[in-house]
Amino acid sequence: MSYIAVIFTSTRRDSDHEEYATWSHLMSEMVREIPGFLDSDSFRDPETREGVTIAYFENEEAVKTWREVSEHQEAQQLGREKFYGEYRVRIARVEREYHWERPD
Amino acid sequence: MSYIAVIFTSTRRDSDHEEYATWSHLMSEMVREIPGFLDSDSFRDPETREGVTIAYFENEEAVKTWREVSEHQEAQQLGREKFYGEYRVRIARVEREYHWERPD
Repeated sequence: MSYIAVIFTSTRRDSDHEEYATWSHLMSEMVREIPGFLDSDSFRDPETREGVTIAYFENEEAVKTWREVSEHQEAQQLGREKFYGEYRVRIARVEREYHWERPD
Repeated sequence: MSYIAVIFTSTRRDSDHEEYATWSHLMSEMVREIPGFLDSDSFRDPETREGVTIAYFENEEAVKTWREVSEHQEAQQLGREKFYGEYRVRIARVEREYHWERPD
């Protein structure tokens, strides 16, 4: 069964560090509560200020639910007003995957 | 038109730093030469040693071409022998995207 990856790449402005950290933490906590949320990974390079968050959801309905959460909409608004110089959201369907783990 | 995102998440072992840097750089240069390569983003958290590389390709044929490049196969072999404790490769089809940039 396929699932959805929401790939959010962004460039942070050099400003609003505490407020950004607060909202970033809140969003990472809230997305976990969405029915159909599977997992997420988040990285940012402190030098280039570029980063990516990839959130995985079971289906489009879960993506829609997350998009419509009011605190998430507020965070997106703050993102445009303050936090980001640029961002891109890609909605992708994971068609296959391979996992490898070191045998111990 | 849709395109492909190859999402490679991995955990580095705390070893082989120079050899890893050499191969990582070589791969980031070589993938750019693949016909149908579009773009890539790469991040790693030095504390958790977790990282992600997302490479975007026009189509599955480009993904296949990259997978079969001999130096890439050698890098994958070294990845399992030395560099990584764990990795996951997800092949996803980007179905839609949104871009926002701060108006100047």
